[in-house]
Amino acid sequence: MSKVVHGGNLDELSRIYKLNKENLIDFSANINPLGVNIKVKEAIINALDEIERYPDITYYNLKLAISEFEKINYNNLILGNGAAEIIFNLVRAINPKKVLIPGPTFGEYEEAVLSVGSNIEYYYLKENNNWMIDEDIINHINEDIDMIFICNPNNPTGILTDKEVIINIAKKALSTNTILVIDESFLDFVRDGESYSVINLLKEYNNIFIIKSMTKLFAIPGIRIGYGMCENKEIINKMELVSVPWNINILAEKATLEAIKDKEYINRTISYIQKEKNYLYKELNKFNDIKVFNPSVNFIMFKIINNIDLKLELMKENIIIRSCNNYIGLNDSYYRVAVRTREENDKLIMALKNAIN
Amino acid sequence: MSKVVHGGNLDELSRIYKLNKENLIDFSANINPLGVNIKVKEAIINALDEIERYPDITYYNLKLAISEFEKINYNNLILGNGAAEIIFNLVRAINPKKVLIPGPTFGEYEEAVLSVGSNIEYYYLKENNNWMIDEDIINHINEDIDMIFICNPNNPTGILTDKEVIINIAKKALSTNTILVIDESFLDFVRDGESYSVINLLKEYNNIFIIKSMTKLFAIPGIRIGYGMCENKEIINKMELVSVPWNINILAEKATLEAIKDKEYINRTISYIQKEKNYLYKELNKFNDIKVFNPSVNFIMFKIINNIDLKLELMKENIIIRSCNNYIGLNDSYYRVAVRTREENDKLIMALKNAIN
Repeated sequence: MSKVVHGGNLDELSRIYKLNKENLIDFSANINPLGVNIKVKEAIINALDEIERYPDITYYNLKLAISEFEKINYNNLILGNGAAEIIFNLVRAINPKKVLIPGPTFGEYEEAVLSVGSNIEYYYLKENNNWMIDEDIINHINEDIDMIFICNPNNPTGILTDKEVIINIAKKALSTNTILVIDESFLDFVRDGESYSVINLLKEYNNIFIIKSMTKLFAIPGIRIGYGMCENKEIINKMELVSVPWNINILAEKATLEAIKDKEYINRTISYIQKEKNYLYKELNKFNDIKVFNPSVNFIMFKIINNIDLKLELMKENIIIRSCNNYIGLNDSYYRVAVRTREENDKLIMALKNAIN
Repeated sequence: MSKVVHGGNLDELSRIYKLNKENLIDFSANINPLGVNIKVKEAIINALDEIERYPDITYYNLKLAISEFEKINYNNLILGNGAAEIIFNLVRAINPKKVLIPGPTFGEYEEAVLSVGSNIEYYYLKENNNWMIDEDIINHINEDIDMIFICNPNNPTGILTDKEVIINIAKKALSTNTILVIDESFLDFVRDGESYSVINLLKEYNNIFIIKSMTKLFAIPGIRIGYGMCENKEIINKMELVSVPWNINILAEKATLEAIKDKEYINRTISYIQKEKNYLYKELNKFNDIKVFNPSVNFIMFKIINNIDLKLELMKENIIIRSCNNYIGLNDSYYRVAVRTREENDKLIMALKNAIN
């Protein structure tokens, strides 16, 4: 059981608040609203007989397919049972003494770091700076910092960090022997996401480690698949030493092999998200009591200038949103919503009108 | 990728030796020969739409079902992505300085212990004592030993340890503040297995931690599900701290929920294994060049008094067996075979005749 409250916990909420899970619209998890490709489900059905066998302990075919998908070397890739396992295994492998983490950001970095007893230094993002990660983060990097986490675009703020800034961070980190972890799990949702990705910097900066989740883009969070990419063989080898064998379920393997074949689905997703994100942003901006932070990605953070418990209010209308009260630097006033289908987004707006006005 | 060579690695072998995986009969993995219950496959198909959601992060329903299956308290249970993850998370949680491990035994204990940099003391089992774990193991338990692993029945030897011996080990371990880990993953295949299980000792000995795999009994190794049981809340809490969230794939969750409903399948398995194990044991004993160790369970270890590479020889006939050359205390002369269906067992015997005579 996790220590952090996450989005997407419909089972828990249904039990606590006696809701019918089937009726809920989940804006709390940032999953592709286009839903899972039917071919992925077919691939799972076709693989059913194989559950009687162990997965390939080397995951050769899956690693090959992902390395071709990402256009990186097979040996620079490591797979995980979800991106969460990559985060934990990286921290277990390096056992950093001190880690620099922006706040607010995805809670699993902190959870992983605390699980090995490491210390955390926070780099606080500021609302009046639109939650941007600025070059001044470089002043916090020194020989005592073994690792830095940067989520790009950042979760829950939805703010992108420019590649120039990341390059400067990487340079400083290289000089202080610090591993720079860039979580690009949501970058596939961003138009021109490649221009923000540091994947082409891996060769030059062997202190960069990239995390990717496949579950958000391909709408398969139940399946658990993520990976890490790094040119530094020492980091990859150490991670392999701490990895549990057969960590990826054989059905997750087959589902992923199918999912990444469909490049058209990815393009369709980007266009769809772009359009709906802009629509939802515009609609949210119409509320006087809501301050919306300009999103780059498939989720939007906002603040309500109001004293209501918006999560509870919307739950009455079977809409689940993410309260940001357990993020470092945020509080009960901040919420995050995923960009979903037009029909669902309209339901959210309608429910917000009822709750706030 | 794992560091240890395991059984069940048909993908790897097929690639290396250019074999057609579909034609292979796998005696190298100790999986229930009755195969997976069709209802388990149906449960996976019925759950396909749910892959778009995160698994319940608390795994409430699954934990409830397993705690009822094992007749233990919900809070004394912890789930893993296969028994392998339970082994690793236990070792990560306790971070033992020194661990006592019998040799030969299942390689993952050693792998997990080494992954956190702990030291190992081996308790060597002896062929002339029929590979039994004797009471003299108690002399190796002292304040320096933080953890002991005992696999019961032991893998790869197939030898059971009497409950009286385990009770005496537990008593000594309690006095030295040592955690006694009993891996009962294969006990469900043993007739009267319950009489060997220490599950009813958990209350009295809060230093006992039981590991169970579900993948062998229910023939679902591709699915990855295992669990640990312990009365000591401190151990469970520490393990929860190091556990990766959503570690069990939603399809594995649904498959397991279905699998454990079928008590009749378990009874049928025990009868079938009992009969076929005796048959295979008798047939193997007919070879002059083979010394067979009397098995208790669904796999049999034997030694050949001969210089041939039996694994390679049998591979020519599409039969995969487990060489025991990478187990502590064993060498190239030792092999392990799973008990499979009569038809398959006969093919093994026939192939052995061709290879040895």
